[in-house]
Amino acid sequence: MNNVYKHTVQYYETDKMGITHHSNYIRWMEEARVYFLAEMGWPFKKIEELGVVSPVTSIDCKYKLPTTFEEVVDIEASLVECKSFKFVIEYIMKNAEGKVVFEGHSAHCFLDMEGNIVRVNKEYPELYQAFMNKMNE
Amino acid sequence: MNNVYKHTVQYYETDKMGITHHSNYIRWMEEARVYFLAEMGWPFKKIEELGVVSPVTSIDCKYKLPTTFEEVVDIEASLVECKSFKFVIEYIMKNAEGKVVFEGHSAHCFLDMEGNIVRVNKEYPELYQAFMNKMNE
Amino acid sequence: MNNVYKHTVQYYETDKMGITHHSNYIRWMEEARVYFLAEMGWPFKKIEELGVVSPVTSIDCKYKLPTTFEEVVDIEASLVECKSFKFVIEYIMKNAEGKVVFEGHSAHCFLDMEGNIVRVNKEYPELYQAFMNKMNE
Amino acid sequence: MNNVYKHTVQYYETDKMGITHHSNYIRWMEEARVYFLAEMGWPFKKIEELGVVSPVTSIDCKYKLPTTFEEVVDIEASLVECKSFKFVIEYIMKNAEGKVVFEGHSAHCFLDMEGNIVRVNKEYPELYQAFMNKMNE
Repeated sequence: MNNVYKHTVQYYETDKMGITHHSNYIRWMEEARVYFLAEMGWPFKKIEELGVVSPVTSIDCKYKLPTTFEEVVDIEASLVECKSFKFVIEYIMKNAEGKVVFEGHSAHCFLDMEGNIVRVNKEYPELYQAFMNKMNE
Repeated sequence: MNNVYKHTVQYYETDKMGITHHSNYIRWMEEARVYFLAEMGWPFKKIEELGVVSPVTSIDCKYKLPTTFEEVVDIEASLVECKSFKFVIEYIMKNAEGKVVFEGHSAHCFLDMEGNIVRVNKEYPELYQAFMNKMNE
Repeated sequence: MNNVYKHTVQYYETDKMGITHHSNYIRWMEEARVYFLAEMGWPFKKIEELGVVSPVTSIDCKYKLPTTFEEVVDIEASLVECKSFKFVIEYIMKNAEGKVVFEGHSAHCFLDMEGNIVRVNKEYPELYQAFMNKMNE
Repeated sequence: MNNVYKHTVQYYETDKMGITHHSNYIRWMEEARVYFLAEMGWPFKKIEELGVVSPVTSIDCKYKLPTTFEEVVDIEASLVECKSFKFVIEYIMKNAEGKVVFEGHSAHCFLDMEGNIVRVNKEYPELYQAFMNKMNE
């Protein structure tokens, strides 16, 4: 398994039901994405140095099983779509028993600092190639 | 427009891009849902007094336009599906100019305190009827 | 009572003890401060347009009584110290019964966008005067 | 240095000033405290199994230097006071250059599940002894 990022559930991430509040998984997707891109050789900082940002354009997710304080969650991120101006990452989160607790996707577009769409295949072929290599793994 | 809940974007909800961090919209969906159910005559507290909870089972959302600190966001929640053991709420968020900034859905199931599925049409017909009335509005 | 800001405790602000997680009060202090400055005639935006920011330099707080989901908390902010380059705001939070649940202070300095200290009494006397008027109320 | 806990600043912890929002340090204090107690041989879970909770009664903190996304912050927690029914932990946070970015304290009381004060020296001498040993290190 590649690109497995580990998140330990914090006390402040629980709610009065005694479990992790569902909004936190969206944040963990971001943590795993940051890790995924860094592992790919393109940490956020390096992408931002090109003058490119990749805001989230949509999210979907399924909550399968609850988690709670002190559990360690394994998050496997993988690139499932990449086009000239957008990409989609899939996240599978598992608990210590290996059971899937969460599945989700985040879609992103490439923008410059003024908010214009950037076609990375033409403008930043090295970045595009890194994504393509990841797709073919 | 019924059930419009207003959220003012807080400084602590922004991120280093200068806009609202995308995870916060998931929290605003919850705020609007709490308001929606209270307006329906069934605030969380009243549902929980029946021994029923309604955890989120899935979410999907589209980020249309950014928002930032001090903007007031109108959130219209509406019930788009209701069955014996689950329901789906849709959320449309608009900025002060009336432009849609976010669209999303949250799906929920009805559980008892031990985590067993509750068929509210049989067990709590009054609650079920309130949902049905809302569907037909 | 002047400058009373109301915050309704959200579900996502509770933790597994069933009460508001203590970190959220720090965020409510900010909400009340934003409101206080706007009431004073100097909303954040207007101060930032001068090229001045006022980051938090220290905080102290006492947690007196717990609060939880759906409680409405009254937050009274008042200016308790103001010098040329710093100010201190006090926050008293009360529950619906009028009991004090939280007391705290935040201290702030005035900085320009490069992080240099700004002596507002000399550089922005209008802003300084507004603070002074508030002290003498 | 004992009990150094590392926190990597997340994107969602930054604000529109481009730095870590000050409220997050309160959460990192909790992360470091959880780690500190586990290292001491008394993880939260073990204390809670005694029927004892240790809510925060007060906090004070000084923000010395800003941090931002991707920085790794070293957090050293140490016990600076321990009595029969309360304890105080000090937190020193440093950036990668070894510079102090934050100093703070959290005070806690020992309560049972009904909210009554627990004198751990009498009721749970083993727990009290662990705290005492830590004080004398």
